[in-house]
Amino acid sequence: MAAALRALMLSHSPPLDALVVPSEDYHQSEYVSARDKRREFVSGFTGSAGLALITGNEALLWTDGRYFLQAEQQLTNEWKLMRSGEDPAVDVWMADNLPTDAAIGIDPWCISVDSAHKWERAFAKKQLKLIQTTTNLVDEVWASRPPPEANPVVVHPIKFSGCSVEDKLKQLREELLQEKARAIVLSALDEVAWLFNVRGSDVSYSPVVHAFAIVTSTAAFFYVDKRKVSSEVGSYMEKNGIELRDYSEVSSDAVLLASDQLMSAKTAEEMVNDATETGSGGINNSAEEKNNDLIWVDPGTCCFALYSKLNQEKVFLQSSPLALAKSLKNPVEIQGLKNAHIRDGAAVVQYLIWLDKQMQEIYGASGYFIGSEVNDKDQLRITKLTEVSVSDKLEEFRASKEHFRGLSFPTISSVGPNGAIIHYNPEPETCAELDPNQMYLCDSGAQYLDGTTDITRTVHFGKPTSHEKACYTAVLKGHIGLGNARFPSGTTGHVLDVLARVPLWKYGLDYRHGTGHGVGSYLNVHEGPHQISFRPPARNVPLQSSMTVTDEPGYYEDGNFGIRLENVLLVKEADTTFNFGDRGYLSFEHITWAPYQTKLIDTSLLVPEEVEWLNSYHIRCRETLAPHLNTSEMKWLEKATEPISA
Amino acid sequence: MAAALRALMLSHSPPLDALVVPSEDYHQSEYVSARDKRREFVSGFTGSAGLALITGNEALLWTDGRYFLQAEQQLTNEWKLMRSGEDPAVDVWMADNLPTDAAIGIDPWCISVDSAHKWERAFAKKQLKLIQTTTNLVDEVWASRPPPEANPVVVHPIKFSGCSVEDKLKQLREELLQEKARAIVLSALDEVAWLFNVRGSDVSYSPVVHAFAIVTSTAAFFYVDKRKVSSEVGSYMEKNGIELRDYSEVSSDAVLLASDQLMSAKTAEEMVNDATETGSGGINNSAEEKNNDLIWVDPGTCCFALYSKLNQEKVFLQSSPLALAKSLKNPVEIQGLKNAHIRDGAAVVQYLIWLDKQMQEIYGASGYFIGSEVNDKDQLRITKLTEVSVSDKLEEFRASKEHFRGLSFPTISSVGPNGAIIHYNPEPETCAELDPNQMYLCDSGAQYLDGTTDITRTVHFGKPTSHEKACYTAVLKGHIGLGNARFPSGTTGHVLDVLARVPLWKYGLDYRHGTGHGVGSYLNVHEGPHQISFRPPARNVPLQSSMTVTDEPGYYEDGNFGIRLENVLLVKEADTTFNFGDRGYLSFEHITWAPYQTKLIDTSLLVPEEVEWLNSYHIRCRETLAPHLNTSEMKWLEKATEPISA
Repeated sequence: MAAALRALMLSHSPPLDALVVPSEDYHQSEYVSARDKRREFVSGFTGSAGLALITGNEALLWTDGRYFLQAEQQLTNEWKLMRSGEDPAVDVWMADNLPTDAAIGIDPWCISVDSAHKWERAFAKKQLKLIQTTTNLVDEVWASRPPPEANPVVVHPIKFSGCSVEDKLKQLREELLQEKARAIVLSALDEVAWLFNVRGSDVSYSPVVHAFAIVTSTAAFFYVDKRKVSSEVGSYMEKNGIELRDYSEVSSDAVLLASDQLMSAKTAEEMVNDATETGSGGINNSAEEKNNDLIWVDPGTCCFALYSKLNQEKVFLQSSPLALAKSLKNPVEIQGLKNAHIRDGAAVVQYLIWLDKQMQEIYGASGYFIGSEVNDKDQLRITKLTEVSVSDKLEEFRASKEHFRGLSFPTISSVGPNGAIIHYNPEPETCAELDPNQMYLCDSGAQYLDGTTDITRTVHFGKPTSHEKACYTAVLKGHIGLGNARFPSGTTGHVLDVLARVPLWKYGLDYRHGTGHGVGSYLNVHEGPHQISFRPPARNVPLQSSMTVTDEPGYYEDGNFGIRLENVLLVKEADTTFNFGDRGYLSFEHITWAPYQTKLIDTSLLVPEEVEWLNSYHIRCRETLAPHLNTSEMKWLEKATEPISA
Repeated sequence: MAAALRALMLSHSPPLDALVVPSEDYHQSEYVSARDKRREFVSGFTGSAGLALITGNEALLWTDGRYFLQAEQQLTNEWKLMRSGEDPAVDVWMADNLPTDAAIGIDPWCISVDSAHKWERAFAKKQLKLIQTTTNLVDEVWASRPPPEANPVVVHPIKFSGCSVEDKLKQLREELLQEKARAIVLSALDEVAWLFNVRGSDVSYSPVVHAFAIVTSTAAFFYVDKRKVSSEVGSYMEKNGIELRDYSEVSSDAVLLASDQLMSAKTAEEMVNDATETGSGGINNSAEEKNNDLIWVDPGTCCFALYSKLNQEKVFLQSSPLALAKSLKNPVEIQGLKNAHIRDGAAVVQYLIWLDKQMQEIYGASGYFIGSEVNDKDQLRITKLTEVSVSDKLEEFRASKEHFRGLSFPTISSVGPNGAIIHYNPEPETCAELDPNQMYLCDSGAQYLDGTTDITRTVHFGKPTSHEKACYTAVLKGHIGLGNARFPSGTTGHVLDVLARVPLWKYGLDYRHGTGHGVGSYLNVHEGPHQISFRPPARNVPLQSSMTVTDEPGYYEDGNFGIRLENVLLVKEADTTFNFGDRGYLSFEHITWAPYQTKLIDTSLLVPEEVEWLNSYHIRCRETLAPHLNTSEMKWLEKATEPISA
């Protein structure tokens, strides 16, 4: 593969000393469609994050700590693994290792404005040149590249979205006005889907449509493969003042936008009439509009190709206002998310019940409730449970629920040591067998029409060690400590992150990932602009009432086990006795419902407040899930949620 | 006053539209000497932080939340109070309110490089000009300005400093080399004193000398009023390779330094000899020295005047390396700080015992131990206790201790509502009388030859309300939560700050100040570069082993009371069971010794770990202070430190 690419690099004008193949698509997506998996095709590495670099004599792949092990297994000898955080970053490596004046090729549709700017700064010292290739060289050598998908665009009805396109456009245009912008270019797939209240199935796990949007003070353009748009959806667009254009037209329209010549078909028609009638012409000729002459571009999601077509002096580079707007769930979305999480919780409980029974029957495990040795270790087994087979069963339970539309990310179903691989992705051929003597970590979620879910539970069906219990309890204390926090308005997730870590730090333990991310409403399972993380945020977006955020501390012991506990929380106004500083205080509401395995808790390590919280959560679990479980399931859940005492 | 200044502003060339009078001296000090209190002289406001601005028709004073009340009381009608954090910042106000092209005068010795740069950026839009006045206009109208002090420079012996000047200079020069700097200009008074192991008494509360220093790869210059230097100290300087120059010479020497012509008398002499002998001359002619051609300037502490004399392209603007070096206490300093805190703790306990007796005798209070109503409210009193008279008594107890050299800051001795004024400074004429029915907050500290102290205790000699107890307990929980934290290397105080706040946030309470600052070794009571604060730090300096830091959460209820609890902590390596990520874990050691008033604790709100910590701290308190207290004092302390149970 690299050889074929090197030939193309040489014949390129100018010849390329290096070619960068990022994992992102034209929209800087985290999950991409099959035909956009160029980095996977080139390198063989299948993880969701990574970047390949091919030079005249080397092939390197950068990825992060979640994927070191997987990349080592998947990369051939030809490839060198570069570990983010340990090895130099790709731009630094290029500046240090490529010759002066080297030409580095990149498809400018696959790199964000932020990255391109950062690289250009790193390249300056060595006079390296970032060359925008006019075609994607990988596509040229990729004979079996899947064809463009033609999945239908569907309207996401107001009963789930809770807010009309009209209202969303109105708010967006107010924000444009405030920043003196006459238009915004939208690249993030979830923002486009959210704004126009549409969904699709172009990308696994995220119900989005491959599309761009441009919104001006008077018009809104939706750039999409027109085959995906039925006549019904077409009328819906028209009714909402959205003009349909072909996906590829975004490029030429950006040029028109730069010179203020982009107009809707309707405006163009009116102008012809106006000119005929009055002899005057031109667009945007009011004084106010002349003052608002900026084009708003989000440098984190917009590709360098589109940005390059604009007049850069008139570009307003700032995070898209839709990121925050989308994160503030409206009452309909909140109710939908709560409902989806109840059905999802019922599926998880049904799965745990099923797994409990299987583990006892097949492996002679003592089961979910009893912590004792396995009583028939050497039994000959006809059936086997594997990480993949059980996660398929979990999907089955979810699929039986109302409004189910698929998973929200690849299920992390991991036994023992695999649990310590934070983004473990079991494959049917190579995955491990369930083991009654080991911890089992399951991080999973689904897409429902009314909401997206994300939940992690860690369980043991045999006899956990006291060390495993101590670690589980420390993770649980962090999970409760963060979830129970009250905090003044204006507080960022960065400030709260430590609350989930102190109980682990006490023992010298920690975890190498953030503690929480926003969750979409039948959209991406990971969304910003807020987060709960030890990393100082690039944007200081505080947690705000009606945001969703996960609470997922963990502990990972290489070669032994992984523990993670995750609920989705809703930020809401807190009912505090006082309100010092008149700032208003916030707190969290758990909307995820599934028991914590009390067998794994060392209750002597809990304080009364933690015991009370756990017991009260468990009682609410019973009450909330009761309408969705049958009598025998409820019996199991009642046992699983029996009060504990310190 | 303003009128006289306005006349000078008009006759200035160019005429000034505004004059800025900051509170800082030539060294950007927090506490300044009497003759440097220009802002106080001009405005009448005596707080430690603030900035005056005089325009053609207005006089404005900016200060922060600690001083709003005091400023309101002290400013005459002529002045307008500008509240930091609420009103626009001074640079923004000037840009918004002064006419285009306005000339703004400032004594460039009284503004830091950072502030000057920030203001110039703010001024750019309106073409405002920052004019460096050649004299200080305030000094010209200040007839009664105190004369320059001539307090002796004293050598701080190695038995207290723990590190020789030679070693400190060696380490500093290594850091210069690493940054390709051939010299550093040192302006911060505590850095100069620390580097040369000298102390003085030019400034109240801080045992520093008014001096600058310049250190090159081969020479070290000490700019000081030569009258302050005895012949003994002179020889000490010479022995340590430090050349004495007059304070005012720093200005011309900076010019010489810029053109690489600054040389020690010895070098100059040698050069003359060399030239005679070999015919060659010049300084810094080795290849290595030619590569190192930068001058290191700390933009936060160096004044704009000195900076302006350098070749700005060759200036390396970065925080001084001495800030970190000074904050990492050596074993001798650590032992000294611990000893000083023990003597200081004994003084505080003796003070509490004395106050307890007085409050009972004079005011009929139930006393430190018993919470009941006052039994003789209307008694006629011959003696009275006031906030100032009792703090004088506290100073007496401290003054009787070995190595005492004075207070480390003005004692905050505050009764009832005055406790809610965070930086309350009682004056003999106006201060309040002690009151057995109100909380009493005392934040105080001293300078001892072997260390600087800072401690806050809040007590009640009558019957506290249950609300006061709940608030005291919440503050105590935060104080314990932070002090008991363990955390991985690399963690900043910003990340830990929330641990002191969550117990308050639970009720919707908070406090409007940071949680901790570094403490010097017989130097400034406030020192960096680290801190524990909710504000994201300008410099991300993590907490490191052998740093000191205070732990001082509080709660302030306007018009009612203030609560603050403060100990000095020493950062040390933690003895954790595990060491995840091989980063090393840190924890805190309390080095302050004085009881918390158990009468004020609502034990039902404490968790077992907090109760255990408190009881064990109290036992260590007894053991540690025993050698410094007599039998009856110990009896009181034993009662004060009796174990509590939850």
